[in-house]
Amino acid sequence: MNLLLINPNTSTSVTDRIAGVARAAAAPSTEIRAVTARTGAPYIATRAEAVLGAASVLELLADHANGADAVIIGAFADPGLGAARELLRVPVVGMAEAAMLTACMLGRRFAIVTFSVSLEPWYWECVEYNGLARRCAGVFCLDEPFSGIDDVADEKAARLVELCGRAVAAGADVCILGGAPLAGLAAQVADQVPVPLLDGVAAAVRQAETLAVLGPRKATAGSFRRPAPKPMTGLSPALRRLFEEG
Amino acid sequence: MNLLLINPNTSTSVTDRIAGVARAAAAPSTEIRAVTARTGAPYIATRAEAVLGAASVLELLADHANGADAVIIGAFADPGLGAARELLRVPVVGMAEAAMLTACMLGRRFAIVTFSVSLEPWYWECVEYNGLARRCAGVFCLDEPFSGIDDVADEKAARLVELCGRAVAAGADVCILGGAPLAGLAAQVADQVPVPLLDGVAAAVRQAETLAVLGPRKATAGSFRRPAPKPMTGLSPALRRLFEEG
Amino acid sequence: MNLLLINPNTSTSVTDRIAGVARAAAAPSTEIRAVTARTGAPYIATRAEAVLGAASVLELLADHANGADAVIIGAFADPGLGAARELLRVPVVGMAEAAMLTACMLGRRFAIVTFSVSLEPWYWECVEYNGLARRCAGVFCLDEPFSGIDDVADEKAARLVELCGRAVAAGADVCILGGAPLAGLAAQVADQVPVPLLDGVAAAVRQAETLAVLGPRKATAGSFRRPAPKPMTGLSPALRRLFEEG
Amino acid sequence: MNLLLINPNTSTSVTDRIAGVARAAAAPSTEIRAVTARTGAPYIATRAEAVLGAASVLELLADHANGADAVIIGAFADPGLGAARELLRVPVVGMAEAAMLTACMLGRRFAIVTFSVSLEPWYWECVEYNGLARRCAGVFCLDEPFSGIDDVADEKAARLVELCGRAVAAGADVCILGGAPLAGLAAQVADQVPVPLLDGVAAAVRQAETLAVLGPRKATAGSFRRPAPKPMTGLSPALRRLFEEG
Amino acid sequence: MNLLLINPNTSTSVTDRIAGVARAAAAPSTEIRAVTARTGAPYIATRAEAVLGAASVLELLADHANGADAVIIGAFADPGLGAARELLRVPVVGMAEAAMLTACMLGRRFAIVTFSVSLEPWYWECVEYNGLARRCAGVFCLDEPFSGIDDVADEKAARLVELCGRAVAAGADVCILGGAPLAGLAAQVADQVPVPLLDGVAAAVRQAETLAVLGPRKATAGSFRRPAPKPMTGLSPALRRLFEEG
Amino acid sequence: MNLLLINPNTSTSVTDRIAGVARAAAAPSTEIRAVTARTGAPYIATRAEAVLGAASVLELLADHANGADAVIIGAFADPGLGAARELLRVPVVGMAEAAMLTACMLGRRFAIVTFSVSLEPWYWECVEYNGLARRCAGVFCLDEPFSGIDDVADEKAARLVELCGRAVAAGADVCILGGAPLAGLAAQVADQVPVPLLDGVAAAVRQAETLAVLGPRKATAGSFRRPAPKPMTGLSPALRRLFEEG
Repeated sequence: MNLLLINPNTSTSVTDRIAGVARAAAAPSTEIRAVTARTGAPYIATRAEAVLGAASVLELLADHANGADAVIIGAFADPGLGAARELLRVPVVGMAEAAMLTACMLGRRFAIVTFSVSLEPWYWECVEYNGLARRCAGVFCLDEPFSGIDDVADEKAARLVELCGRAVAAGADVCILGGAPLAGLAAQVADQVPVPLLDGVAAAVRQAETLAVLGPRKATAGSFRRPAPKPMTGLSPALRRLFEEG
Repeated sequence: MNLLLINPNTSTSVTDRIAGVARAAAAPSTEIRAVTARTGAPYIATRAEAVLGAASVLELLADHANGADAVIIGAFADPGLGAARELLRVPVVGMAEAAMLTACMLGRRFAIVTFSVSLEPWYWECVEYNGLARRCAGVFCLDEPFSGIDDVADEKAARLVELCGRAVAAGADVCILGGAPLAGLAAQVADQVPVPLLDGVAAAVRQAETLAVLGPRKATAGSFRRPAPKPMTGLSPALRRLFEEG
Repeated sequence: MNLLLINPNTSTSVTDRIAGVARAAAAPSTEIRAVTARTGAPYIATRAEAVLGAASVLELLADHANGADAVIIGAFADPGLGAARELLRVPVVGMAEAAMLTACMLGRRFAIVTFSVSLEPWYWECVEYNGLARRCAGVFCLDEPFSGIDDVADEKAARLVELCGRAVAAGADVCILGGAPLAGLAAQVADQVPVPLLDGVAAAVRQAETLAVLGPRKATAGSFRRPAPKPMTGLSPALRRLFEEG
Repeated sequence: MNLLLINPNTSTSVTDRIAGVARAAAAPSTEIRAVTARTGAPYIATRAEAVLGAASVLELLADHANGADAVIIGAFADPGLGAARELLRVPVVGMAEAAMLTACMLGRRFAIVTFSVSLEPWYWECVEYNGLARRCAGVFCLDEPFSGIDDVADEKAARLVELCGRAVAAGADVCILGGAPLAGLAAQVADQVPVPLLDGVAAAVRQAETLAVLGPRKATAGSFRRPAPKPMTGLSPALRRLFEEG
Repeated sequence: MNLLLINPNTSTSVTDRIAGVARAAAAPSTEIRAVTARTGAPYIATRAEAVLGAASVLELLADHANGADAVIIGAFADPGLGAARELLRVPVVGMAEAAMLTACMLGRRFAIVTFSVSLEPWYWECVEYNGLARRCAGVFCLDEPFSGIDDVADEKAARLVELCGRAVAAGADVCILGGAPLAGLAAQVADQVPVPLLDGVAAAVRQAETLAVLGPRKATAGSFRRPAPKPMTGLSPALRRLFEEG
Repeated sequence: MNLLLINPNTSTSVTDRIAGVARAAAAPSTEIRAVTARTGAPYIATRAEAVLGAASVLELLADHANGADAVIIGAFADPGLGAARELLRVPVVGMAEAAMLTACMLGRRFAIVTFSVSLEPWYWECVEYNGLARRCAGVFCLDEPFSGIDDVADEKAARLVELCGRAVAAGADVCILGGAPLAGLAAQVADQVPVPLLDGVAAAVRQAETLAVLGPRKATAGSFRRPAPKPMTGLSPALRRLFEEG
């Protein structure tokens, strides 16, 4: 099986991190191709950066989706997910979506735990957009400086474990480590957290495989049917083809 | 991987049906053991029958959960699911839960489509219990006689396809064929429905595999930690052991 | 009027306690018969124990419901309530349900106050199941050891009064002392709490009398009509009769 | 026990009707005093008329609440209920509130069935205000002329029974005949409706008795404590006393 | 343009305050007439006082609405708003409604910040009534004595700024200073609060102008059509005319 | 006052239409500059097209926001609105948002009425995103071919009036004509619809003026503070400046 892992952030170090975790989580026969946004923020944290990230997702799909059995959007609040799902013939999952829905099979309420308070509004909008507010015990964020996104997982490991404890005390049955820079940390600290601890990338990879195996048909009706062809303006040839042919 | 597939209905023909679909959906290396309730209704359709079904689930777990890497509750509104999740060290998924959460990765709103109007209240309570009412375009039920649960899938195939069409017109992006007696039908009629069509058993098997691979730890805190041992009364030795040791 | 008071817990001391409170709360002409679960936990606190409790409720109904004008389920989160309501021709109320709905006539938001943090998840699910989350200011629980369920009401009286004060500060207009082991305490400490304080047993008894007097007909349609007869397996003769004839 | 039954409508024929139904529903020892608004609409059907009705309720309380053990607001969407509950030391219930909360003990979802489409918006706001939208299968209204409020119950009995049938088909487990002019009709047609059928006046009387017997203390905290005394302007001496002393 | 500004409180000092702020906020060509309730509380803070305030609003409309292009209800939780909107041919806005809806165009979640904890329940009911609970980060109230409503804005300015800070920390993107006695304060302290700070009166004036310019027709259908004429009892000639002719 | 009106669609005929309506609706002293997306769909109708539209909004802001007192996003479901609100120092409103919030001051429930069923999912997501589902009676769409977006308003005027009638029957107190190609139609047919009929462009212009006059400060905290500067990649100089300086 071929999975395309899209990093809507421009930081290739983040791509490397999530690609490594993805390969470790995937079935042995799964191939993972990871690609990086050429435009936008090194690490998306706001609505404005997410607009650029979503546009980058479409461009990367246009260039790389061919041959993939399923696609993963590798940024936590899933920029461009609905758009990609409309356009493609194969399944697309987002990291946040996959982690939250997986968490719902492990407990009644999940918490999202992450490293920067600046992510909270965007993450919470993602919870609400998914209609999962009642299943979410909260978005728990560290509110302290960190050296950089490449080291934040190591640097803040102990503090994030502590924060998971607070989330559990607040009613969480499951914790999700949110944000691509934390990919891989869950595996290292899972035994220090008293409830199941999910890694967004690992959850997304397994869910992408699941969807690809289930092999759902492309919708030709409903809100995820492909948009009818229109005279689009200003698109690269590849992107135009994506809109015209999926 | 070993999966235990529990049929909370007393009908062994239903067990055979869902076991067959489960084996077809599972990864090649997955072993599936299917067991049948000894007490209760041939096919659960009401809250009262679900109480018996839930009790049967615990008894079957007591006798058969040993050695399983994950457990599937093979009746659509998931009787006994929360209880099983509290008691066991390994993941447990329900057919309805797995199908609905999988559907959420394929569209904005799903519909549950089934063969008997008598199932509607129980199924809708399951949707609400999962906090997914906003994601559900409705529970769509045939309201007409059928010969029996063993043949209803074949007998009503065309009518259920029609009903899926109505669900799509009402806003569904994905349809789920609900109810164990319909297991296997989705694969046969998927190309006649214009949106992704999910089989509850297939979804549950893949999600059980996914959870088993992710390998979440057993909660020692939160609402799915195992209950503290208590002096239980009137339990079979196996059930007592399940409550005492998981 | 004859009321059947079912204790889904196996502890007869709890039965004695709630029966005493029930008799004190009932109209002079009301007779109360109290029966105790033969199977399950001495005091239900988890989903798994509630599954056993719900099954016990059906068994006790099978043996004792005959001749009752209404039935009360005497455990706070109402195990087996929906099932009992389907099967019986006479009204059935649950302690939690009766207390919460009564509270809604005394204020805008109620709080449930109880003696053990282990009860919180089950109680909160009950609030949500009843669709009353918006009317509930929270489930407030002591988080400290107690000697045993027979003495917890006396032992923790002062601490529970304190906790009611915290609930009022958090927006509660009414407090409910939740959990059968606290039956009778409300009458003793009501004057120490600055808002109406409800006893679940007393509320349930008066609501059961109210329903019995209103004399609603048994539904023959809707989701609480009796289930159509089916070939049930493994049931005691009495339970079989309950499923077949109500 | 003494109950004060307040008719916020100015029509004495409606007062006579609801007083008769109230006396038939009450316990033998209960005395019912019924009083009629002096100002406002003969039959409240809009927000503007409800403002006058609520003001009338306070005036009638000022003149007549003395000596009552509980008070009933005898207009279906409960004008002035919250205000009365703040001011009085004894319990107050509204017809709609009492009927809806009673219905919640008889089924999962109730319907309100009434004789004029002009009542729908006000009734639905009442359902929402009570936080019971999830428990309500809808407000079902006849949309056809009627001779007058004194005869509408007789004139439309058959049509309302029919409408109850539609409500049941739409998911109602219980029907409530809403609106004071329909008081008494439920008793006459209950056997023609396949689910429990509630009379708002009867439900309110029994709930008022229940609350009076439970004897909750007057809140001195929370949102239903009495307002602190203020220099009120333009009030009758009795109304001033009500605000000052309850 | 002529705006009628109704103060449902009896305090003329409050009228003067809000009229001053209204004139400062209005377009140069807008005329503002301010009138004061003759009956009720100097400053409405409870449901009971709001009933009197709503009745006063109708009386003031009866006497003064003639010639107005739009009407403002100048008490924060908008007593009588729905009733006024039914009766009048011109637009009516409430201070709370206008401020909250304006806030929704400046951020995701707003907070209401006010000077007395006694206002919290009434304000929160207003948020819920408007269906805006999901957009509201909370009602934040000082819980400390103040000298009087005429001076509370000056006296508590610093404390309210502090409270806005707490609201922002709790997730508010916008703060609203709620309560007519705080009118005008926002302009003075806006630069001390790190998010947009709204004055209810200023927002209401601009929204009233906006609605008057948009010039929506009076509804002749839907729930805000004028009530059909009825034989009203006990009304002043002016109020009778308002009900009969708008 | 200077307003910037952004058309996220690439069709200049749509720009001309909305600019004309905007100028007619604006105060005499207001200047309106209208700009058109260079990239994307002639008329946005899907999530994928909205991603391109949102990116175009940011590019147009980068080039044209300078000097504007407020900005209007002139496509109905408000692509890029949150992003624009984060980045700019001046207020930004969306057509859908402005129309819906204005409608909330004219009635209890609004309906969105539009010309193509393909718009329904995107519009409904916008209603839900704004947390206004409880205030919305539905999105009502024609389901029939039309010649083109330039003529659809004229061609379908009578059919849309009819659809408004259906929306009113379904509970709408206010109707909104949704979609930029319908701009201007409301003024022509308002007298044929029995409730207030809103034009999204006119509402947005007046709300933009209102916000500009209220002059809220730019948030320096909360979720609409400007994102902290980051090393962005692949942006035009103007867009980079927008991210860096607003």
